[in-house]
Amino acid sequence: MGDVYVGIDLGGTNIKIGCFDSDLTILCKTSVPTEAEKGPLMTVEKIGVAVEEMLAETGLSGDAVKAVGMGAPGQFDLKEGIILASPNMTEFNNYPMRGMLEEKFSKPAVLENDANTACWGEFICGAGKDISDMIFFTLGTGIGGGIVIDGKLVHGGNDNGAELGHTIVHPDGRLCGCGQRGCVEAYSSATATVKRAKEAIEKKAESSLKKLLEEKGGITCKDIFDHAAAGDELAKEVTDMTAKMLAIACVSMLHVTDPQRIVFTGGMTAAGDMLLDRIKEYFNEQVWTMKKETVEICFATLGEDTGIIGAAALAQQLVEKS
Amino acid sequence: MGDVYVGIDLGGTNIKIGCFDSDLTILCKTSVPTEAEKGPLMTVEKIGVAVEEMLAETGLSGDAVKAVGMGAPGQFDLKEGIILASPNMTEFNNYPMRGMLEEKFSKPAVLENDANTACWGEFICGAGKDISDMIFFTLGTGIGGGIVIDGKLVHGGNDNGAELGHTIVHPDGRLCGCGQRGCVEAYSSATATVKRAKEAIEKKAESSLKKLLEEKGGITCKDIFDHAAAGDELAKEVTDMTAKMLAIACVSMLHVTDPQRIVFTGGMTAAGDMLLDRIKEYFNEQVWTMKKETVEICFATLGEDTGIIGAAALAQQLVEKS
Repeated sequence: MGDVYVGIDLGGTNIKIGCFDSDLTILCKTSVPTEAEKGPLMTVEKIGVAVEEMLAETGLSGDAVKAVGMGAPGQFDLKEGIILASPNMTEFNNYPMRGMLEEKFSKPAVLENDANTACWGEFICGAGKDISDMIFFTLGTGIGGGIVIDGKLVHGGNDNGAELGHTIVHPDGRLCGCGQRGCVEAYSSATATVKRAKEAIEKKAESSLKKLLEEKGGITCKDIFDHAAAGDELAKEVTDMTAKMLAIACVSMLHVTDPQRIVFTGGMTAAGDMLLDRIKEYFNEQVWTMKKETVEICFATLGEDTGIIGAAALAQQLVEKS
Repeated sequence: MGDVYVGIDLGGTNIKIGCFDSDLTILCKTSVPTEAEKGPLMTVEKIGVAVEEMLAETGLSGDAVKAVGMGAPGQFDLKEGIILASPNMTEFNNYPMRGMLEEKFSKPAVLENDANTACWGEFICGAGKDISDMIFFTLGTGIGGGIVIDGKLVHGGNDNGAELGHTIVHPDGRLCGCGQRGCVEAYSSATATVKRAKEAIEKKAESSLKKLLEEKGGITCKDIFDHAAAGDELAKEVTDMTAKMLAIACVSMLHVTDPQRIVFTGGMTAAGDMLLDRIKEYFNEQVWTMKKETVEICFATLGEDTGIIGAAALAQQLVEKS
């Protein structure tokens, strides 16, 4: 029996868990509710049980597990393997997650920021597998980021790097949840896109979204992209701004780390070519003319599994490095 | 006799050359006119003669030289050691500078972008010598950049990284020489600061700079900072914008690479605390409130020698790595 690497994606609602072989091919996966309120010890227990059951069902022995990787939201002390602060799961604050996983599985473990883990999954097995330098944006409620330079994930001097959603694209611009003004997240996250659409509807009567908002009492980011695709002018303007600010962030990141590829993932990428083409158009309009740029802007390819794949890949790297 | 490392800073007007020992202590230095129009072969010859003379005067043998490093302006193929394009010294375009230096000195040589070389000098011997992650801005005619992550200089996937002057701080903002709009260079370089001051003088009569401009027919960046220090409102507004846009670039870079220190160098830093304090004030005003940031914003400490020190340090690293 070959080696098995466990990849865990700790989310606010569910914990996704997958077992992978040495080629990072998925052997089995499962999902269990997080129930953060029951405390981190219970979470680790639950992960242990889920892995055991999954391995048994697949006819694998627990001994095959060589290492465990976890991606989690929040801020970390990566050297010590501690979750310092997890805004939506405060029960995990200051919890030595890596040590607890090591104890549970009696194997080496690695803990990483969830956006970095997803980035690493795409870099090793997805949209970045043939390159050395990549920029990664997750477009969801917020905007997360990941950076790979010369084949290595960037953590930063205090383990807080790659917070790309909080790079500033507009001086004294829109207020962001982080307290800054003009973050790209304050324009181009799903939440910000909805907020801007609602503000525009209030100011301007003519939009098919206005009726929808009145009927449903709310609109989603998907609604806005759907209505833009159907030709609604207001929805087009709102989604254009989403794409434009992302394109400006892409131009800046081109000049910072000079990636071969800039990869977008997350719920908003469901908007498809309508979003991607617009980002590319704005990028080409905004980028310098000093030299022809060859950076490719694309969507991620691994879908929802990128977190568990990335976590398993980090686990494998941990064992191979030691 | 100990080992000697040669550091060369190829500028548009002069070539600075220094010889350093293994502790990167300077043994001797000189400067010769570049005369780019005479062609790169003549330049390499001239460097060879200068080093030979300098070593002889210092009582050192040419055999002591272990490696040679050069920082040069332009775009490069670092793998091949070629200057691809040097905007102000087109004679050097596509010139295999590294190979020619290796041939001249019969020693290993390394070629690097001049801003990166200066950054490396500060990182190894100056403002960054006790840290692992640094951001470096050179404030001059343009704005150059350098990035050190986890003790390594960032080159980017196509050797074009760390062009920090061309990160965008304002969508559809001021036109930059590079063709983009809203680059930090278009607001905060010495050239841009003078340009903005002249524009403001044209629009607004009351300024001590107006008289100076009329008398001298021109104003310098130093004039503007001097008049701001003396209380001129227009000069204050202009230099405030210089500092504010630099602060916004600092906030963004904090969230990208999470440096322990952000270091400024170049002619404009002659403005001293007036500039530095203002950048810090704007940084603290603009940066997020999610967590307390500890990044230190400061000036470089090595002055004009940082280029030759960095080049020598790269040369030493080259030998030690091999």
